[in-house]
Amino acid sequence: MNVPKPYLVRTGLDGILDGLQEGDPFPPERELAARFGVARETVRQALHELLVEGRIERRGRGTVVSRPKLVQPLSLRSYTEGAQRMGRTPGRLLVTWENITVDAEIAAALDVSPSARVMHLERVLLADDVRIGLESTYLPRHRFGDLEQHFDPTTSLYSAIRARGVKFGSATERIETVLPSPREAELLESTTAMPMLLLNRRSVDVDGVPIEVVRALYRGDRVAFEATLDDR
Amino acid sequence: MNVPKPYLVRTGLDGILDGLQEGDPFPPERELAARFGVARETVRQALHELLVEGRIERRGRGTVVSRPKLVQPLSLRSYTEGAQRMGRTPGRLLVTWENITVDAEIAAALDVSPSARVMHLERVLLADDVRIGLESTYLPRHRFGDLEQHFDPTTSLYSAIRARGVKFGSATERIETVLPSPREAELLESTTAMPMLLLNRRSVDVDGVPIEVVRALYRGDRVAFEATLDDR
Repeated sequence: MNVPKPYLVRTGLDGILDGLQEGDPFPPERELAARFGVARETVRQALHELLVEGRIERRGRGTVVSRPKLVQPLSLRSYTEGAQRMGRTPGRLLVTWENITVDAEIAAALDVSPSARVMHLERVLLADDVRIGLESTYLPRHRFGDLEQHFDPTTSLYSAIRARGVKFGSATERIETVLPSPREAELLESTTAMPMLLLNRRSVDVDGVPIEVVRALYRGDRVAFEATLDDR
Repeated sequence: MNVPKPYLVRTGLDGILDGLQEGDPFPPERELAARFGVARETVRQALHELLVEGRIERRGRGTVVSRPKLVQPLSLRSYTEGAQRMGRTPGRLLVTWENITVDAEIAAALDVSPSARVMHLERVLLADDVRIGLESTYLPRHRFGDLEQHFDPTTSLYSAIRARGVKFGSATERIETVLPSPREAELLESTTAMPMLLLNRRSVDVDGVPIEVVRALYRGDRVAFEATLDDR
């Protein structure tokens, strides 16, 4: 047999996962190395892959089988609607709410002068109380300054924007993978070695006037994106 | 001053990058640690972030400023069209071309019986001769078996499918981040520590009949996806 050991181990681990339920304990590294007759380092690499894929997770001193990822539709719907569609309870924790000047790129995207004050809202996104994302939203103050008096930052921002009569027209989204900074990893209760999905979005209203610029970081082990494409 | 050192270092590195052109040498770790007055480990972490983001890359024993990422539109267009739109020359290397039976999930997605032979085409995607992706395409043989005689696997598969009179109707895509297996990392001339973008796609024709299932792995330091969303 000339099958590479990492492949054998990965196939074996996938087989074990198939027989387990969400929350079940996963066998420890040492036991797996003995079972497959390979070095612990080979098992460690395969377990790290499963961890990044969100198939398993650390719990206390052990490892358990994870819940499936939250699949977020790429759409103009809010995070709230995406989470609810998956049967998860959405929530948000406010980290920062400030008025700042922004770099030339964000100012241009919002169509405001580089010296203009912009509202910056930074929130941790929760699904069933698990931290899954960190979202920074930049809003032109001249348009949305009154949110300061009326908006509860633990609720849906899109609902609040729509309640002001603003109609979302279109958005451009860019998706990449990055590693989080130490601060971002801490806010997401993750590590700087966990790949994240970075989503940059610019939304405009039906008249093409900018609504927001968003930089959102999603835990790669917790979130996937889904899009349906039509031939248009 | 109470600014965390990782933040200072990252801001400093971004400033250095702003003053450099693509292909320029990037200062070595030791020099950067001295310049910012921090531990080499702090610089190493920040450089690793830049590497994963594709801002810098190793070349020989040094580090240089990278080309911008290839931005692939999420659309029913082929990889060829996406690369050409960015002014890059697309190419492909054939890795595997075989007829196999597939797991129940792929068989169901292709609407074939689990015992049916499916055509599997695995190719490395190139942009200007740089390996940026690894694409596995599964096609129902009863529909596309004649590709074996007529298709050059270093060219666009979508063009060949369209030339058969098949019209793409819609596709569902799921985007995640994963770490590559040792085999995948080697085929992509990357490492098992480099986060990849994993794209799973199922395409159907205008009558809803399955065309293909695709599992494509893109180097996270080389590729980003972009989507334009409309309120529909």
